[in-house]
Amino acid sequence: MLAKIHITLKKDVLDPQGKVIANSLSNLGFEGIQSVRQGKYIEIMLDGNDKNTATNKLNEMCEKLLANLVIEDYSVEID
Amino acid sequence: MLAKIHITLKKDVLDPQGKVIANSLSNLGFEGIQSVRQGKYIEIMLDGNDKNTATNKLNEMCEKLLANLVIEDYSVEID
Repeated sequence: MLAKIHITLKKDVLDPQGKVIANSLSNLGFEGIQSVRQGKYIEIMLDGNDKNTATNKLNEMCEKLLANLVIEDYSVEID
Repeated sequence: MLAKIHITLKKDVLDPQGKVIANSLSNLGFEGIQSVRQGKYIEIMLDGNDKNTATNKLNEMCEKLLANLVIEDYSVEID
């Protein structure tokens, strides 16, 4: 089972890395960029076929290790 | 227009960061993890409404700045 996890900074948290990307793109001549936010994308291959169990396990992984819930949101999706 | 970009390591490229995550999850007691791969996720807010133009522009951004095509793949998706 392939799980896809997105971890993004919460809306109100400043994203300096995103700002740097936006500035670099502007410097390269790209126009019309309003904002850039950078997050993490994690793919986890899991044993088993039960999506509910897996989703619960993945949420727990995000809360315990993968995401910093003070400043980050996460979403879990299973293929 | 919100563009979502995923940048992942090519399949044959070692992902030490993913390995560390997999080990840490095992140490925390999570079982059944076959593999973990970590990538980047970038959200770009763009002016305009033309999806084709935007997709071309985003592909160019990935090739020029965001992705290292020697070791990374990218995918672009527009909401």
